[in-house]
Amino acid sequence: MSERKYNFSAGPAVLPLPVLKKAQEELLCLPGCGASILEISHRSKQFGEILAQTKANVRELLNVPENYKIMFLQGGALTQFAMIPMNIIRNREVSADYVVTGNWSKKAASEAKTQGKINVIFDDKEEGYVRKPKDEELRTTPGAAYCYICANETIEGVQFQKEPNVDLPLVCDASSEIFSRPVNMEKYGILYACAQKNAGPAGVTLVIMRDDFVEMSGDDLPSMFSYKKLAEKDSMLNTPPTFGIYIMKLVTDWLKEQGGLQAMYEKNLEKAKLLYDAIDASNGFYRVHANKEYRSFMNVSFRLPSEELDKKFQEEAKAYDLVSLNGHRSVGGERASIYNAMPREGVVALRDFMVEFAKKNA
Amino acid sequence: MSERKYNFSAGPAVLPLPVLKKAQEELLCLPGCGASILEISHRSKQFGEILAQTKANVRELLNVPENYKIMFLQGGALTQFAMIPMNIIRNREVSADYVVTGNWSKKAASEAKTQGKINVIFDDKEEGYVRKPKDEELRTTPGAAYCYICANETIEGVQFQKEPNVDLPLVCDASSEIFSRPVNMEKYGILYACAQKNAGPAGVTLVIMRDDFVEMSGDDLPSMFSYKKLAEKDSMLNTPPTFGIYIMKLVTDWLKEQGGLQAMYEKNLEKAKLLYDAIDASNGFYRVHANKEYRSFMNVSFRLPSEELDKKFQEEAKAYDLVSLNGHRSVGGERASIYNAMPREGVVALRDFMVEFAKKNA
Repeated sequence: MSERKYNFSAGPAVLPLPVLKKAQEELLCLPGCGASILEISHRSKQFGEILAQTKANVRELLNVPENYKIMFLQGGALTQFAMIPMNIIRNREVSADYVVTGNWSKKAASEAKTQGKINVIFDDKEEGYVRKPKDEELRTTPGAAYCYICANETIEGVQFQKEPNVDLPLVCDASSEIFSRPVNMEKYGILYACAQKNAGPAGVTLVIMRDDFVEMSGDDLPSMFSYKKLAEKDSMLNTPPTFGIYIMKLVTDWLKEQGGLQAMYEKNLEKAKLLYDAIDASNGFYRVHANKEYRSFMNVSFRLPSEELDKKFQEEAKAYDLVSLNGHRSVGGERASIYNAMPREGVVALRDFMVEFAKKNA
Repeated sequence: MSERKYNFSAGPAVLPLPVLKKAQEELLCLPGCGASILEISHRSKQFGEILAQTKANVRELLNVPENYKIMFLQGGALTQFAMIPMNIIRNREVSADYVVTGNWSKKAASEAKTQGKINVIFDDKEEGYVRKPKDEELRTTPGAAYCYICANETIEGVQFQKEPNVDLPLVCDASSEIFSRPVNMEKYGILYACAQKNAGPAGVTLVIMRDDFVEMSGDDLPSMFSYKKLAEKDSMLNTPPTFGIYIMKLVTDWLKEQGGLQAMYEKNLEKAKLLYDAIDASNGFYRVHANKEYRSFMNVSFRLPSEELDKKFQEEAKAYDLVSLNGHRSVGGERASIYNAMPREGVVALRDFMVEFAKKNA
């Protein structure tokens, strides 16, 4: 235990310690099962209860209305990038609007093009992906099926501070901010998130989908690519990623114990403020990538005056047990991912180190 | 620990106890990482080593030639049922031959039909899926790209005892027998297996593919459905199921310690013989589904003289810590899955119970 460090990895990322302890305790034998969670049938009574409780937790935490299905799929966000247009626009010969605000929404738009007509209605490429659009910049396309957004661009650290106000149902990749704040589900046709940032381990993707979207799947699709077939079988069309769902149950149990998403939101804002205040007080030694009003409270992306200092910063941080602070390989610099499970103490330790490092190296 | 029972589940299924113990020991903190395997980046040095070692173990155990790629994908066998024809026959306007010997090959053929022309060259439906074809029954189709087989039909307990001799590369679902015996890889274009029966937990699928098959993917496919793109990025096109791969590393480490696949094969044959001998000596009290020469040494599917006795058998077995003996919901009866990780003691305990139960109830 004393070996554990403050882990700022963007994903797979830190999990709540009580979740890991519980999983460890039960790993040889899930109570009442005679076997590990890794070894029991997905059709067993015990796994059925885990699946049902995970769904109930998600429904409660995100306040998901009854006309939305909750599914646990595989393949990460990159699979959803393709499955969404494959199910929603391909067969119905409609188009879809995409809002491009960074690496992940750009990739989603690119994958969607393999399945049908998409309209990029905003692209912040020229500014270098530093902000989200204002509502008045978004003109949706007549007849489009949905408006696609990435709630939080993990690489650039750029986040929608609230849902954009458009006249289409939103389809949203919330991978790096799911469960970090309350959301207004009624604005969404689809809200999805791979688990490995804020909800569990790699290998399970939470997909929440309004019933009319579920029904759009073409009948010619292979079973595993059809939301309709997946939803009909309640994520059990084949063996689901049972361990990932079990960990998501433990994470959502923990979130409820923490007071739910409003409480998490307040904690997250306060943690982010600790870092951004230190950055803003550094006289430009630390520079944030995102424009001020769009700064992410999940991924604090910043850089130092030189690549040499970036390197030195990350190296010296390790001596303080602050690890995985490197920026994404596509942009470099630093990134501190401070998801729900990152304790305030970890953020304070990083802040203190940053203040000290700036003093010595400015 | 004393709570653990002999678990005959068909999948997810029993794992080697040393694997579970190692995973438990490391679950809070992977040595040298400062974090759990669940929490570290897939691009970290540590995970890179795990991935490389798992691949090396698979290559060594199955004696995989250098002109085959080894990939760790998501979505289970049902996803492969669609991806294989999507990559291999759809764009190239060729057909494929399917050998239908039970539930899983039947489903594979059905999913393949969504992608192109398939030829069912053998179907044992009329006999009730009790056997595999003899070589002389298999006439392949001129121009077909591959011949698809399911090595072991988990539900019916029917197994190829060796690779069929056909003039096409085999594409094989080995989900419920991977690592149970040596294979002649050169007969295969694709050999794949979901992990949750004999190789690890649910959520990771091992796919071994000859280079010329990898190259067949159409360029119009979404990235996650293209073997070519997945292989190019060495299973890291996006975040792979890191924990599942880690467990597969531990399982394959354990297999090597056990003496490799020839040693496992001998143990497996001996375990299966214990049960089949007891069945054959029961004067018809226990009846095996499969024809004698095609009996699976992984899944022993049998039934008792009545459904009442089936129920009584399963109920009383629990008192002896013998669990998950129910047959698949589509066929009923009993099924004892005796994968690599089922210890001989468990099989002996089941055999002894079966002998005793037959004596009392015949």
